[in-house]
Amino acid sequence: MTDRNDVADWWRTAIIDMEPGRIHLRGHPVQELIGTTGFAQMIWLMVMGERIDGPRAALFEAALVAAVDHGPQAPSIAAARMAATCGVGLQSAMATGLNMLGNVHGGAGEQAGALYQQALTAGPDTLGQTLDQWRSEHGRFLPGFGHRFHKPVDPRAPRLLALVDEAAQSGAVGGRFAMIARAIEAHLALERGKPVPMNIDGATAVIYAELGCPPPLARGFFGLSRSVGLLAHAWEQTEQGGRNKGPTPPGYRWTYDADK
Amino acid sequence: MTDRNDVADWWRTAIIDMEPGRIHLRGHPVQELIGTTGFAQMIWLMVMGERIDGPRAALFEAALVAAVDHGPQAPSIAAARMAATCGVGLQSAMATGLNMLGNVHGGAGEQAGALYQQALTAGPDTLGQTLDQWRSEHGRFLPGFGHRFHKPVDPRAPRLLALVDEAAQSGAVGGRFAMIARAIEAHLALERGKPVPMNIDGATAVIYAELGCPPPLARGFFGLSRSVGLLAHAWEQTEQGGRNKGPTPPGYRWTYDADK
Amino acid sequence: MTDRNDVADWWRTAIIDMEPGRIHLRGHPVQELIGTTGFAQMIWLMVMGERIDGPRAALFEAALVAAVDHGPQAPSIAAARMAATCGVGLQSAMATGLNMLGNVHGGAGEQAGALYQQALTAGPDTLGQTLDQWRSEHGRFLPGFGHRFHKPVDPRAPRLLALVDEAAQSGAVGGRFAMIARAIEAHLALERGKPVPMNIDGATAVIYAELGCPPPLARGFFGLSRSVGLLAHAWEQTEQGGRNKGPTPPGYRWTYDADK
Amino acid sequence: MTDRNDVADWWRTAIIDMEPGRIHLRGHPVQELIGTTGFAQMIWLMVMGERIDGPRAALFEAALVAAVDHGPQAPSIAAARMAATCGVGLQSAMATGLNMLGNVHGGAGEQAGALYQQALTAGPDTLGQTLDQWRSEHGRFLPGFGHRFHKPVDPRAPRLLALVDEAAQSGAVGGRFAMIARAIEAHLALERGKPVPMNIDGATAVIYAELGCPPPLARGFFGLSRSVGLLAHAWEQTEQGGRNKGPTPPGYRWTYDADK
Repeated sequence: MTDRNDVADWWRTAIIDMEPGRIHLRGHPVQELIGTTGFAQMIWLMVMGERIDGPRAALFEAALVAAVDHGPQAPSIAAARMAATCGVGLQSAMATGLNMLGNVHGGAGEQAGALYQQALTAGPDTLGQTLDQWRSEHGRFLPGFGHRFHKPVDPRAPRLLALVDEAAQSGAVGGRFAMIARAIEAHLALERGKPVPMNIDGATAVIYAELGCPPPLARGFFGLSRSVGLLAHAWEQTEQGGRNKGPTPPGYRWTYDADK
Repeated sequence: MTDRNDVADWWRTAIIDMEPGRIHLRGHPVQELIGTTGFAQMIWLMVMGERIDGPRAALFEAALVAAVDHGPQAPSIAAARMAATCGVGLQSAMATGLNMLGNVHGGAGEQAGALYQQALTAGPDTLGQTLDQWRSEHGRFLPGFGHRFHKPVDPRAPRLLALVDEAAQSGAVGGRFAMIARAIEAHLALERGKPVPMNIDGATAVIYAELGCPPPLARGFFGLSRSVGLLAHAWEQTEQGGRNKGPTPPGYRWTYDADK
Repeated sequence: MTDRNDVADWWRTAIIDMEPGRIHLRGHPVQELIGTTGFAQMIWLMVMGERIDGPRAALFEAALVAAVDHGPQAPSIAAARMAATCGVGLQSAMATGLNMLGNVHGGAGEQAGALYQQALTAGPDTLGQTLDQWRSEHGRFLPGFGHRFHKPVDPRAPRLLALVDEAAQSGAVGGRFAMIARAIEAHLALERGKPVPMNIDGATAVIYAELGCPPPLARGFFGLSRSVGLLAHAWEQTEQGGRNKGPTPPGYRWTYDADK
Repeated sequence: MTDRNDVADWWRTAIIDMEPGRIHLRGHPVQELIGTTGFAQMIWLMVMGERIDGPRAALFEAALVAAVDHGPQAPSIAAARMAATCGVGLQSAMATGLNMLGNVHGGAGEQAGALYQQALTAGPDTLGQTLDQWRSEHGRFLPGFGHRFHKPVDPRAPRLLALVDEAAQSGAVGGRFAMIARAIEAHLALERGKPVPMNIDGATAVIYAELGCPPPLARGFFGLSRSVGLLAHAWEQTEQGGRNKGPTPPGYRWTYDADK
């Protein structure tokens, strides 16, 4: 048995301090945050531990808005809709969709952020080598570039980059990561002889990097953003009704192949 | 086998329309929403299908900000922190915490909304009977009132109610649900001979009802709000490290009792 | 602050007792259970707190075997397969599928068990009234009877019932619930003028009731059983590969309908 | 739009074949499996695609029995108990616990299996180098050896190894992986000057390797095994009652430390 101090210290946090009738979040009384702080600003404060304002807050908000949904073809959205027909609560349906996100679905933002960081450290003259090394370690697709569906271009990316440019011109962010990302985009176009444009993950990774987020948080923020779509679709499906809704109409079933 | 139209119609949504290079959310090109729409406004648009602005948007934002966290004692937050030490991704840790939310944890907002609606329909003269009937059907605690920890008062509730009052004075919302909720609060105080003040769930339910949300969405919006705390805590725990972190220090274990 | 005893007693269980180098499960040293106890028997011991053997164990095992899979059309199985392509671990993919199970998908066993109990208590002479009352409270479908896909009959149900009959003839179980379930089946056939045969949920509910399980455990045992299919499918999908696999082929997408 | 064949082939499996009134699992009519196949045997058939019998089946069953529970201190078990007090279904509570399992919690079996395979390929003469290389790539702890709680020895491991020895003597399995694992154990004891005995993950990894499972399945089988404990504890907690049960008693809370 350990002593009481061990218990008292088992959970330790800088996020929240609480007594009966008193809740402080990141050092601020909750009642002072309510009504004065936007939801996106609150997210930043809670996760990063500091306030965000003005053009930097706007940039963060843009990244959150951009990734909310990609339709019922996305595994996350489909799962939330299915769950809504299985007799679980709305929050469980959301959790089911959120739990779909991993290294492949919703993980590219973190990887793109890490790639940018690596490219920045190595310097512009060695970009080709940096990309080659990345591919030798992680496979042939560069995270954040190209899209299997949105040809020629993912409409979210140029809009996000334009906002980064504005913020860089006003001095709100440095703009180095936008430059790095565009250099990669240009390099890829030359290499392949056709454009492989930045996608939503590449663009939001620029924003998160410009704002000083560690790359893994790109994944967490994507999760918050996509949760909006999860709720919207789970609720719409709830209203539509349906019971035990599978991926395809009952008539279709699947292919049985004993040799797989 | 059914025909192709069945497949095409299996998933049907009014939320998102998409072609290669084109994403429309609730009828708006995504690139027009990015940079012009706040994250809270985007949540409303996606879930409710219409824009929210001005004082109504501010009220919605306040409700989202208020419920982000209740510390590592809350099962949701504790679960996300534990998960962060078990070798799963950040999004899975968030999903684990979100999945803790159900009828009991994070469900009171929906119930309070339904109670207000019932009280409104029955009218003020029969409030006592409405409450008695509720209790006979659902148990002795009225959802949205009283708090086992925050004595005498949950600091979030009065602040939220004050914002509703402001919005009602400006005509942005009707204010009927604030009145109903306060009438219930007053009734309870008389009945018990001591205050049983409105809590966070009771207060956010007032906001959601004033804004015209169906009660079940109180649960969904709570999930979005609490996900912020889930991410903040999962990330902090990731940074703190730890492996297989259980609820209490290893020395404590548990009580074995063969008769339970 | 509470005192140490409160902590020591916060978690209390009759299931497991542990010291360094010593693990007792339901009072048995784990090393004595390993190699002497079948997995199904172990499940029963852990959950019900007592040993199960002989024909009763065989019956329980049959129920567990029967419900392992219903193919990639089932939301649970589809979700596990999708998750396996999203870059999460095998266990998370299983959890995603398990989390699909709720009141509608995987909940009928519990409901059927409760219905049998109610019919038994009311007695055979009032079966029609019992069923009518159930329907007035829970809707027009009786849990455990009929199947939207398996016409004319779910092949698992008659086999399970035959095993119950054998066990009843040997005196291993009483057989009352098999009788009740068949009486309901006969009543339904008369009522509708065509057979509405017992399905897997109705048949496993008979077994669980015969063995003395509280109805909610039908749901838990179904979860254990279906987890086998979840693992098999998640693993097969992992081996097949695929990235971000949605419910339908990428070319199909969905129907956009602004009015839903 | 793609054509119908694409849809028909989108989901493809060797596990289950189904028509109305007919379910074949791995080529066997389900009604022939029910009542003739043990639950552990069914797990093997479904996941591995072939039958397992006799001493090999007994070995598999022993591995499944051994890992069912490690008490409310384990994050998985604690999460399931907490969830049971939050107003979600029994299956969601199980899913929440299962979702705790990842690389760290429940992942060592897969890693140990991979290590054994590597040591076998390299040969016994170079065991020291193999272990050094493993540690240079994965960190100083060897998966499957040592236990932070069970000193001097995890009671499950020697029992499982004894069963492997028996099976090897009868020729049911080869015994090479038991030898490898013991060689690692001996090597570690010499290196550290004190025993670092094999633990449950090391021992079950021996069994899975002897039976010819790919290492990742150690993780899946662990998930099935632990799900038994998850159900037992979620159900016991449901019976005990409680609402919103956090990790420690309400009086304890946590340490607030602004510098973390």
